[in-house]
Amino acid sequence: MARPAIVLLSGGMDSATCLAIARQQGFSAHALSFRYGQRHAIELDAATAIAAALGAVEHRIIDIDLATFGGSALTSSDDVPKDRDDPAIGGGIPITYVPARNTIFLSYALAYAEVSGSRDIFIGVNAVDYSGYPDCRPPFIAAFQAAARLGTRLTDLTVRAPLQQMNKAEVIRRGMALGVDFGITSTCYDPSPTGRACGRCDACVLRARGFAEVGIGDPAQAAQR
Amino acid sequence: MARPAIVLLSGGMDSATCLAIARQQGFSAHALSFRYGQRHAIELDAATAIAAALGAVEHRIIDIDLATFGGSALTSSDDVPKDRDDPAIGGGIPITYVPARNTIFLSYALAYAEVSGSRDIFIGVNAVDYSGYPDCRPPFIAAFQAAARLGTRLTDLTVRAPLQQMNKAEVIRRGMALGVDFGITSTCYDPSPTGRACGRCDACVLRARGFAEVGIGDPAQAAQR
Repeated sequence: MARPAIVLLSGGMDSATCLAIARQQGFSAHALSFRYGQRHAIELDAATAIAAALGAVEHRIIDIDLATFGGSALTSSDDVPKDRDDPAIGGGIPITYVPARNTIFLSYALAYAEVSGSRDIFIGVNAVDYSGYPDCRPPFIAAFQAAARLGTRLTDLTVRAPLQQMNKAEVIRRGMALGVDFGITSTCYDPSPTGRACGRCDACVLRARGFAEVGIGDPAQAAQR
Repeated sequence: MARPAIVLLSGGMDSATCLAIARQQGFSAHALSFRYGQRHAIELDAATAIAAALGAVEHRIIDIDLATFGGSALTSSDDVPKDRDDPAIGGGIPITYVPARNTIFLSYALAYAEVSGSRDIFIGVNAVDYSGYPDCRPPFIAAFQAAARLGTRLTDLTVRAPLQQMNKAEVIRRGMALGVDFGITSTCYDPSPTGRACGRCDACVLRARGFAEVGIGDPAQAAQR
C-alpha cells in the first residue's frame, strides 16, 4: 500500500512537477489547492486538471481569506508589474509576495497530513522563487518542519521541496521526463478572463526563459494558438 | 504612538486575559478570531464583546475551513467527552484536539502582523493546555517564531505567550487584577443554543476548578441565573 503524502498544488509548472516526483517516489498523493482571492483563479482549473492527469488520489481546494489582510498585488487591485528586465533577482521582496502565504499553505497541509495519516508534505518551491520570497527559502522550510513536528502528532513529518536546487529549465526537463503535460499548467499572474497568459509579468517571463533554455516551445502557448 | 500587536482571541478566559496583558504592556491590540466550524460558535460573540471591553483597536474574524479535514470532536459530530475525573492530565492528546489548529491560527496572525506592521503576536496558551495539546507547548511556540522570522519580512517577530507558566486560577487572578470581565467569556466545548455552559466538559470542569481555587464564584454562572 502506497504511503500517503500531501502535495501543495497551485496549477503552475513547479507544483505539477513536484506532484509528478511524489508519484514517481511511490506516494499516493493528496493534492491541496487554495482559493485565496488570487486574481488568477483560472489556475485552480489547471490544478484540477493536473491532479487528475498525474493520478492524485484526492484533490481538495480550501477557501482562505488572504485578501482580507491585503498587502499583495496578487490579491488586491494593485497592478501586477510587467516587462521587468530581471524578475528573478531584482530588488528584494516583490509586490506579488503574499504575506505569510507559504506558512498558511503549509499549516493547512499539516492539518491534512495529520488527518490523512501522511508523514510527508511536498511543496514546489525552487531556487528561482527564493531569490525574492522569504517563505520559499530552504531555512524557512526546515524551520517550518521543526515547528510542525513539535506542534502535531507527526513527530517524524518531512517537508519535501524536491525542486529546491532547480532553476526553471531544470524543472521543465524533470517534469517532461516524468510525463507532465505543461500545456495544462497555468503560470501567469494576470491572465485574461479566458485564461490567456499576459506574457509580460515576472512569472510569464521566467516561464518563457525556461522553455527557451530547454530549446523547445511552450506547449501552453501552442494550445492557445 | 502605541506599538501594534496581534492578539489571538477565542472568547475564552485565557485569551481575554492575554489581551488585557497586551493592553497593559502598552500595545495597540489587533484582535483576531476564527470561525472554524467549531460547535460552540457562541464563543465568537464573546470574543467580540471582549475585544470591545478591553479596547482592541480592531477585531477581525476569519472564516477557515478546518471541518473539511475532520478529526476533532470540536469540529465534527463526535461527542465531546464529559464528566472526566482528570481532564488536565488524562491520556495524551484529547479528542477535542483540532489538527494543527494553533499552527494555522498563528500563520494567519503572522500574515496580519506583516500587513499591520506588528512585530508581536500574543497567544493565550497556558500550562493547563499543554498537558494535552502539542501545539500549546513552549517548544512549539519557540519553533513557530523561528519559522515565522525566516518566512516573512518580520525578522524580529516575537510570539508572546504570557500565560505559559500559569494555571487556571493564576489566569483568573491576573485577569481580575487587569479588569477582565469573566462574565462575558465563553469556555464550554458544548454549550446550549442559548450559550449556557454544559458544566461537564473538560473546559467547564477546569474553569470551575479555577474559580474554586481562587475562592470566588464564576461571574458567567451568576449571569445565567
